[in-house]
Amino acid sequence: MKFAKIDTARKARTGFAEVVFCAGKEDAHLVSIFKRIFEMDGEVFGTRASEAQYALVRQALPQITFDPVSKILKYEKPDKERIGGIVVATAGTADIPVAEEAAQTAEYFGTRVERLYDVGVSGLHRLFDHKEKLAAANCIVAVAGMEGALPSVIGGLVKNPVIAVPTSVGYGANLGGISALLTMINTCANGVTVTNIDNGYGAGYVATQINRLAVGQ
Amino acid sequence: MKFAKIDTARKARTGFAEVVFCAGKEDAHLVSIFKRIFEMDGEVFGTRASEAQYALVRQALPQITFDPVSKILKYEKPDKERIGGIVVATAGTADIPVAEEAAQTAEYFGTRVERLYDVGVSGLHRLFDHKEKLAAANCIVAVAGMEGALPSVIGGLVKNPVIAVPTSVGYGANLGGISALLTMINTCANGVTVTNIDNGYGAGYVATQINRLAVGQ
Amino acid sequence: MKFAKIDTARKARTGFAEVVFCAGKEDAHLVSIFKRIFEMDGEVFGTRASEAQYALVRQALPQITFDPVSKILKYEKPDKERIGGIVVATAGTADIPVAEEAAQTAEYFGTRVERLYDVGVSGLHRLFDHKEKLAAANCIVAVAGMEGALPSVIGGLVKNPVIAVPTSVGYGANLGGISALLTMINTCANGVTVTNIDNGYGAGYVATQINRLAVGQ
Amino acid sequence: MKFAKIDTARKARTGFAEVVFCAGKEDAHLVSIFKRIFEMDGEVFGTRASEAQYALVRQALPQITFDPVSKILKYEKPDKERIGGIVVATAGTADIPVAEEAAQTAEYFGTRVERLYDVGVSGLHRLFDHKEKLAAANCIVAVAGMEGALPSVIGGLVKNPVIAVPTSVGYGANLGGISALLTMINTCANGVTVTNIDNGYGAGYVATQINRLAVGQ
Amino acid sequence: MKFAKIDTARKARTGFAEVVFCAGKEDAHLVSIFKRIFEMDGEVFGTRASEAQYALVRQALPQITFDPVSKILKYEKPDKERIGGIVVATAGTADIPVAEEAAQTAEYFGTRVERLYDVGVSGLHRLFDHKEKLAAANCIVAVAGMEGALPSVIGGLVKNPVIAVPTSVGYGANLGGISALLTMINTCANGVTVTNIDNGYGAGYVATQINRLAVGQ
Amino acid sequence: MKFAKIDTARKARTGFAEVVFCAGKEDAHLVSIFKRIFEMDGEVFGTRASEAQYALVRQALPQITFDPVSKILKYEKPDKERIGGIVVATAGTADIPVAEEAAQTAEYFGTRVERLYDVGVSGLHRLFDHKEKLAAANCIVAVAGMEGALPSVIGGLVKNPVIAVPTSVGYGANLGGISALLTMINTCANGVTVTNIDNGYGAGYVATQINRLAVGQ
Amino acid sequence: MKFAKIDTARKARTGFAEVVFCAGKEDAHLVSIFKRIFEMDGEVFGTRASEAQYALVRQALPQITFDPVSKILKYEKPDKERIGGIVVATAGTADIPVAEEAAQTAEYFGTRVERLYDVGVSGLHRLFDHKEKLAAANCIVAVAGMEGALPSVIGGLVKNPVIAVPTSVGYGANLGGISALLTMINTCANGVTVTNIDNGYGAGYVATQINRLAVGQ
Amino acid sequence: MKFAKIDTARKARTGFAEVVFCAGKEDAHLVSIFKRIFEMDGEVFGTRASEAQYALVRQALPQITFDPVSKILKYEKPDKERIGGIVVATAGTADIPVAEEAAQTAEYFGTRVERLYDVGVSGLHRLFDHKEKLAAANCIVAVAGMEGALPSVIGGLVKNPVIAVPTSVGYGANLGGISALLTMINTCANGVTVTNIDNGYGAGYVATQINRLAVGQ
Repeated sequence: MKFAKIDTARKARTGFAEVVFCAGKEDAHLVSIFKRIFEMDGEVFGTRASEAQYALVRQALPQITFDPVSKILKYEKPDKERIGGIVVATAGTADIPVAEEAAQTAEYFGTRVERLYDVGVSGLHRLFDHKEKLAAANCIVAVAGMEGALPSVIGGLVKNPVIAVPTSVGYGANLGGISALLTMINTCANGVTVTNIDNGYGAGYVATQINRLAVGQ
Repeated sequence: MKFAKIDTARKARTGFAEVVFCAGKEDAHLVSIFKRIFEMDGEVFGTRASEAQYALVRQALPQITFDPVSKILKYEKPDKERIGGIVVATAGTADIPVAEEAAQTAEYFGTRVERLYDVGVSGLHRLFDHKEKLAAANCIVAVAGMEGALPSVIGGLVKNPVIAVPTSVGYGANLGGISALLTMINTCANGVTVTNIDNGYGAGYVATQINRLAVGQ
Repeated sequence: MKFAKIDTARKARTGFAEVVFCAGKEDAHLVSIFKRIFEMDGEVFGTRASEAQYALVRQALPQITFDPVSKILKYEKPDKERIGGIVVATAGTADIPVAEEAAQTAEYFGTRVERLYDVGVSGLHRLFDHKEKLAAANCIVAVAGMEGALPSVIGGLVKNPVIAVPTSVGYGANLGGISALLTMINTCANGVTVTNIDNGYGAGYVATQINRLAVGQ
Repeated sequence: MKFAKIDTARKARTGFAEVVFCAGKEDAHLVSIFKRIFEMDGEVFGTRASEAQYALVRQALPQITFDPVSKILKYEKPDKERIGGIVVATAGTADIPVAEEAAQTAEYFGTRVERLYDVGVSGLHRLFDHKEKLAAANCIVAVAGMEGALPSVIGGLVKNPVIAVPTSVGYGANLGGISALLTMINTCANGVTVTNIDNGYGAGYVATQINRLAVGQ
Repeated sequence: MKFAKIDTARKARTGFAEVVFCAGKEDAHLVSIFKRIFEMDGEVFGTRASEAQYALVRQALPQITFDPVSKILKYEKPDKERIGGIVVATAGTADIPVAEEAAQTAEYFGTRVERLYDVGVSGLHRLFDHKEKLAAANCIVAVAGMEGALPSVIGGLVKNPVIAVPTSVGYGANLGGISALLTMINTCANGVTVTNIDNGYGAGYVATQINRLAVGQ
Repeated sequence: MKFAKIDTARKARTGFAEVVFCAGKEDAHLVSIFKRIFEMDGEVFGTRASEAQYALVRQALPQITFDPVSKILKYEKPDKERIGGIVVATAGTADIPVAEEAAQTAEYFGTRVERLYDVGVSGLHRLFDHKEKLAAANCIVAVAGMEGALPSVIGGLVKNPVIAVPTSVGYGANLGGISALLTMINTCANGVTVTNIDNGYGAGYVATQINRLAVGQ
Repeated sequence: MKFAKIDTARKARTGFAEVVFCAGKEDAHLVSIFKRIFEMDGEVFGTRASEAQYALVRQALPQITFDPVSKILKYEKPDKERIGGIVVATAGTADIPVAEEAAQTAEYFGTRVERLYDVGVSGLHRLFDHKEKLAAANCIVAVAGMEGALPSVIGGLVKNPVIAVPTSVGYGANLGGISALLTMINTCANGVTVTNIDNGYGAGYVATQINRLAVGQ
Repeated sequence: MKFAKIDTARKARTGFAEVVFCAGKEDAHLVSIFKRIFEMDGEVFGTRASEAQYALVRQALPQITFDPVSKILKYEKPDKERIGGIVVATAGTADIPVAEEAAQTAEYFGTRVERLYDVGVSGLHRLFDHKEKLAAANCIVAVAGMEGALPSVIGGLVKNPVIAVPTSVGYGANLGGISALLTMINTCANGVTVTNIDNGYGAGYVATQINRLAVGQ
């Protein structure tokens, strides 16, 4: 394609198909990229899409679906097998869009996902009710805005890696998510590493890498 | 005194005796202030003192004592009655100097203090073993550096106010305590308010105000 | 509810009913939460609501009222007894929305509230005319944007705790309220602790906790 | 001089003699500059000097004096007439070094100075006792660290300009004086402008400019 | 007025009439304030007004005028005498709105104003063509965005005070004017003090104070 | 121990023995902690130790060794089997102390480590010479200061997770490592997550978790 | 022109014709400036224009053209000779608008430009395929958002200067481009200097200066 | 060498010999690197060296010299021809160490250098006296701390590129040079690009690249 250098060797090199970051793409470019990837892979996955982009792409690919919560625009092969197991947890309900981006990304790449939403630190009994699920996961994606304390608590409970995702949820001194990011970077718990603010996709990707290693792929 | 406007009406107006912030005081000034307050109140309390200042003041006031952990330089009337009850908790052992500044300040002003140290979020069973003490306190001072998550967890467990004290403990992106301060300001828990970084004295003061109200003084 | 883990034990544990943070809630979720809490408690209180949310909730709960200044959407049991006494003060008229969020929160939770608005530091005679009211309060909530100096001045006048609420009022180097927050965190006055920017709700909550302790509840 | 382009036309152009910023000057350079200016003007004034620099310059200019509080190293013509009147005020005693730099700078340039030290906002009666002095001044230099609220209060009391000088006094979230600087820049009072942190010299200079205009020089 | 504590003693205390900051005022409040001040003073001056506010106030006060550049909404007594002299200078044409706020504020308060616009540091011959005007002014208001260097250059040319006004003009790393503010606060020139970003009103006010002192008022 | 709540269940819960963060520990505490852990585990591992702490601990545990580059103070059981394989890479030679902390931590926890030092982006042929080692690793720890670009480049080359460790190496606008941290958080490469600045220990810990999953432990 | 001091000597002094920064210009001013420059130079070049400004200017100058990608509004003399050679490279496709501003600016000033787009560090083979073009260029303009690593990599490959242009492309902790700016300022590569965020025009200008020197103009 | 990957192809690839950044190098490493480069090139150049490093290296290479102002430790081949011409200018005398690092770096790489020191914006006649030298230079390195305005002024005077070097000179809100860096990045002048704070070496390197292009090398 003239407007972008498509990285056709990507899947061979990294084990992951190309994914589309929809926000800001020009309409014509978006449609050709979706079509091209669908032709190559038989499925296609886009993040940060809008309703308008959904309407547009659907004209070219009628089987495409759009999830208004996660803003994911995708067509996924039916009956895809999912392996291993990760947990995606959120502190509050407002963090769910980012968590769904992580969970659906991991699922698209073949990972089995358990969701634990709204289990933040101001009422920790909600988290502790699920200790077994946490212990069983190959990796936990912990998503939190505001004070961002959830990954530190989970890090203290489990053996396996925790991917901390700060969100821009909050107001005032949350600094658009920078405060939650700093909380997570400064965690006193071991086994916690951090992604960019609202980067559900990135967390789902790394969780898949770890899950694949755990199941021996 | 020529070099400072001593606020003699302070105790009447606020209910608290004058306290000395020792750091940076000139030697001669420090000694006169300690002597003057001791003469007025029969006791005297200084924060952020050095060993050298201790040596100096002891020449004028031999009964003075110095605590190298909290850096408190004081002479306190014996058999002082203490009322009510607060908890001072820390996330790690490195937060103890600030916590002791808070605890000893509150004790000097007549508050009964329970200490719960090293109960941070990377091993929360250490905190949950003391739920009754937390529930019984009129106020909890929660002291934490690094990611600063402890006050949020305590805020979710208790009915009474939590005074959150960020500390400069940590390294790298802790920004000298600013990260922990932001965590606490953005807390998702209710009932939590925040002091300046390392301000154990301020927290002990407010905890005393609340404790006095609670016991009807 | 599927979309959120409602904390039904909350009132028993903390003494406070659940409150709704309306901003960003999906329409269907908002209505069910309002109905559910109204059924449990016979009253319901939401902050940061919009006119559109008011129109929506009113269809399900016709007795609901909306205050366009504080953005509070509530139905409150008539003839609720209010106890003790706190003051809510503002520096300017632009700080009133945040102050009303604090005052009405405290009132909803059963606190008697005295309002002192537009008494900022550029004309302190307006504050000093009300010294008796300040002295009589169990707690003062001091709300200020711009340079945020009001809590420091009030802290120097009273015996009881001052809850400082920075607001995003101002322009230029106010940094969306961070400047006022820093002013308050660095206060030279004793007895002052700080909430997040524009967090009237949080201040009303803590003031209620302190007021309850003061009246022996 | 080879190492610096001395601005000999400066006094004619601006009405102010050259002054020496001593910190960081090489020893040999410092001594020659002091001697050169003394030869030109019959007096000489240096800021931010050290004891060691005093010892050094005294060998060349035995009449030089050093003030360890303000770190000013100067020889001033005796019986210099001083005109008009300004006030230099501080919030706390720790702000006095910066205030003395301002006051002695203004005096060196021929301004009559009234000092009001330790009159900060946590005990405003100390300031209000001196309302007449404030009202009589052609300009007020208000020096404060920590929360930096003093200039806003003074700005609300007087007709004439207030020069606000933030200091690096404080700890934790004072950010080396940036917090006090932001407070002053965001002041809600009129007539207040701001200098760099700890810039007593700059404030004394501007106050002199204003005072000269006021007395018709 | 119920919604605001009007400071009726303000003019006596400070020598300046009340001025209205229009942005964010509720419609009904705005109109009553304009009417009230017009009744007291026979004239009225508002900053940061919108076209819509102009339409509104004009219904109550038909003689009101609106300047779309400076966003000033005012009625000024005809044939007002103006005294002394100040210069208002800008670096670029985009800084003119802030400069006009300063100039018209000073004029409203009785100051004679000379404007020197678009004389920034990337072409200094434009400034140097007006050295006499700069030298003649009792005070110079220097308005600049982007790198904010103009006040430093002017400070090196004149005897009298320079009021530096940073603007939010620029993009990228201008940080909404913080970069220009830092430039001005760190100026190597003497006689320069700084206001908040875009605070033309504040600069016009201080310039008036200095100009009045200079002409002996 | 009185001064700290030792977490004896830690190894069972997380699979990792307790490790000592030496910096700032009081002498007596440090020695008892080293002895206690050595008694429990037959080996002991401390980070950020000083020469003086080495001298101290050696008196109690003569078999202890100290590495002046990584500041690690340890006694490790001989002939420990190491499994799997990770790579620890650095951009420059000044990043080696942090890299060694990571590498030796991973080795202590039983991981086989390949070191690739001084392979930063200003001469990428040095990195590309080792593509096979990168491809073979279960996890890559990429350590870089200054502009911190190395993890992004490695992330584009490999299938497995990259743990990015920013260092405080650099000067000027490196902001003590914050600039490198921001680079890594904003990476355009997939599979990269980030630790705190200079947190070699944390990176070695997570790399061990991932390596264990990969070898089926 | 009344509203701006046109710098007619500019071309003689600097070798570059006046260019128009369109954003924020008032309609009437914009049209007169375009006409005036077209009359002087026979061509005219504006950056950061909108569709609406295009419509407006086209009425006065029908030959004007608008590029919606770069937002450049220009009329350029046909058959302009272009000399020497520079490369403009981008990390991603979203950086192309800024790159086109740089490339078209350089072309307008007579520079021959080679474009290398979408060659960022997460797939460096795309860059390395063009090593000869990079080596042949007199100057390389390297445009990147997100982690901003591209200029460091290019700096390690070439002999001639690299102009690094950070863009605001990205989200979360990209801080509107500040993160990419810091990456570039802290580069470990030699020969790299940096412009403001999104400042394609500035980069095209400097690249032209260097290219002219290289071809002996 | 074991401790570093020496880039032996560097000179062929980039046209510049390896240079040593001395700060932080271990003693043994420093000496071997100096010896190795001296053997390869017959000369050697190190920046940011200390007196102690000078003493050390002199034992191995007696011909080495040390400049205490620029902290450069070098042996340079005698009678090296220097070509073209650049100017290195500083705002104040405190900026000279950084300027000398730039000037001596450029000279080492074969560039003829004209120095213009202490010509900052608070007295611009000192700069304007040297307009011809500025106009004749192929490149100007402009070094400034505090408000950092000098490069903007020079950028407005010349045809050729200006390399702006912010320094950490200043105090208070200079933020260790970040303020000067922001000033330079936001410059309204064309032809100005920026290096890291205090990066004289980097500026001398780029200036040499440009100068070589200008003389046709």
